[in-house]
Amino acid sequence: MAAAKLSLKPAMERVAADIDRQFDLLLRVPDDPRRPLYEAMRHAAIGGGKRVRPLLTVATAELFNVDRQRAIRTATAIECIHVYSLVHDDLPAMDDDDMRRGKPTVHKAFDEATAILAGDSLHALAFEILGEDATSPDPFVRSELMLELARASGPSGMAGGQMMDLAAEHGDFDLPTVTRLQQMKTGALIGVAVEAGAILGRVPPEGRTGLRGYARDLGLAFQIADDLLDVEGDEAVAGKALNKDAAAGKATFLSLLGVDRAREQAAALVTQAVAHLRSYGPEADLLRALAHYVVERDR
Amino acid sequence: MAAAKLSLKPAMERVAADIDRQFDLLLRVPDDPRRPLYEAMRHAAIGGGKRVRPLLTVATAELFNVDRQRAIRTATAIECIHVYSLVHDDLPAMDDDDMRRGKPTVHKAFDEATAILAGDSLHALAFEILGEDATSPDPFVRSELMLELARASGPSGMAGGQMMDLAAEHGDFDLPTVTRLQQMKTGALIGVAVEAGAILGRVPPEGRTGLRGYARDLGLAFQIADDLLDVEGDEAVAGKALNKDAAAGKATFLSLLGVDRAREQAAALVTQAVAHLRSYGPEADLLRALAHYVVERDR
Repeated sequence: MAAAKLSLKPAMERVAADIDRQFDLLLRVPDDPRRPLYEAMRHAAIGGGKRVRPLLTVATAELFNVDRQRAIRTATAIECIHVYSLVHDDLPAMDDDDMRRGKPTVHKAFDEATAILAGDSLHALAFEILGEDATSPDPFVRSELMLELARASGPSGMAGGQMMDLAAEHGDFDLPTVTRLQQMKTGALIGVAVEAGAILGRVPPEGRTGLRGYARDLGLAFQIADDLLDVEGDEAVAGKALNKDAAAGKATFLSLLGVDRAREQAAALVTQAVAHLRSYGPEADLLRALAHYVVERDR
Repeated sequence: MAAAKLSLKPAMERVAADIDRQFDLLLRVPDDPRRPLYEAMRHAAIGGGKRVRPLLTVATAELFNVDRQRAIRTATAIECIHVYSLVHDDLPAMDDDDMRRGKPTVHKAFDEATAILAGDSLHALAFEILGEDATSPDPFVRSELMLELARASGPSGMAGGQMMDLAAEHGDFDLPTVTRLQQMKTGALIGVAVEAGAILGRVPPEGRTGLRGYARDLGLAFQIADDLLDVEGDEAVAGKALNKDAAAGKATFLSLLGVDRAREQAAALVTQAVAHLRSYGPEADLLRALAHYVVERDR
């Protein structure tokens, strides 16, 4: 794994730079009263985050020799959904966060109305990007990417998971319920990030079983690592407030498993995620390295 | 026009019933912690509104002999976007409205977090509906519908228009700026509602010029009529608070033109809208009747 790990950092940096460039081009500030809307979208979208989802799309697309620029466009659309969800989740009525990625949250830097509209705009922008010919000249591929992204982000996916997450503070959720919550809230979008690379490579659904298994286990490992960082992390490194779940009495993997079993579970999920890639050779080393990274990261 | 007007009411009622039925089927309340999310979506989506946009899609689709059920599915997706925009626009940070369609707004009947997520969920649901095979077996049609809907609802369309509308309270907007604002805020979605019928009928873009002109003039007439209702309407009939724009000192067609010129302008736009349909025979009578209706309605 040492060689694969060594190549992870430059791959992450390259994807992050590509995504920033895409957002910079897509979000040119117009000279009209929409200026604060675009500035808010840029504030949220540019220059932050680990870009784990875009890297997943690019790394999977590489398995199937998809043109890198097409993969980057699709990855940007998926990241639009992730960023919009952060902007809305941070709102006072939701998680009420002041800091995100080391900067004030959008409603703090601008105002609530602008934050709501910036989120809504990034949401629509995701589908604009995917719908344009430049992303994929094949309408079947465009249509499938849009459908999968809509499913992953809607009431059966991310938005539904966030609703369950809000209820987790009051409910007495057990491990299966928390697992389902997280598979919807973060797992669905991680799943579409992985699968998008295969869709771009015209891999039929039955050829994506291994990648789906990888994404499912990776998503849960990612969430457990997030829970651990929430209690053990450094706020300055994380760039956001920590320890919020425990303070709110929210049911999480950590509150249900405890630190030691949560850490064991995350490690087991990474091993399982990597095992799902057994039919791939060294071309999947980036996906393998990323699986190890998600539980070893410090933010 | 008498015969056409006579047939408008049953056509509107039939479409309204079809849309309610679609929402009822799409939004079955799950037996899990997402229950309030679905209840909030149902509260917002079912049993209210004039369903002008769905009727536009169905009436245009009829021109091109599109299967009615396909038109209804597409119309439901477009109405999802309209409903989500109402839910978000009503939020305290935006227009802060307590009543909508004669019922409490979603954040009043539920809470703000649920209203934000219900809007986000309806937003994603629109693309889920359009992305499914059942809506259109042709992936090119599916992909074009999704792209046009994303453009109409994003920062260059509805969301951008709403941002300009918020700025209209503080800005000193002139008539061209208010016209552009309204073309984005309400015109873009009305445009896609009309054009969707033609897209389903596989009419190429160059064959949609008349319909686009019709939609543009209709959209502006619709907005001027809305402005007039805001000062002259009956709150009980409208089902929402009125007189808000004038109270906020917002630049509108009405504040810029005055009541008499605004009424003349709306009538002129309807005449123009109908003139754009000159290449169609009696099969476009429903669209003609609808153009007259939008300036004559009382809510």
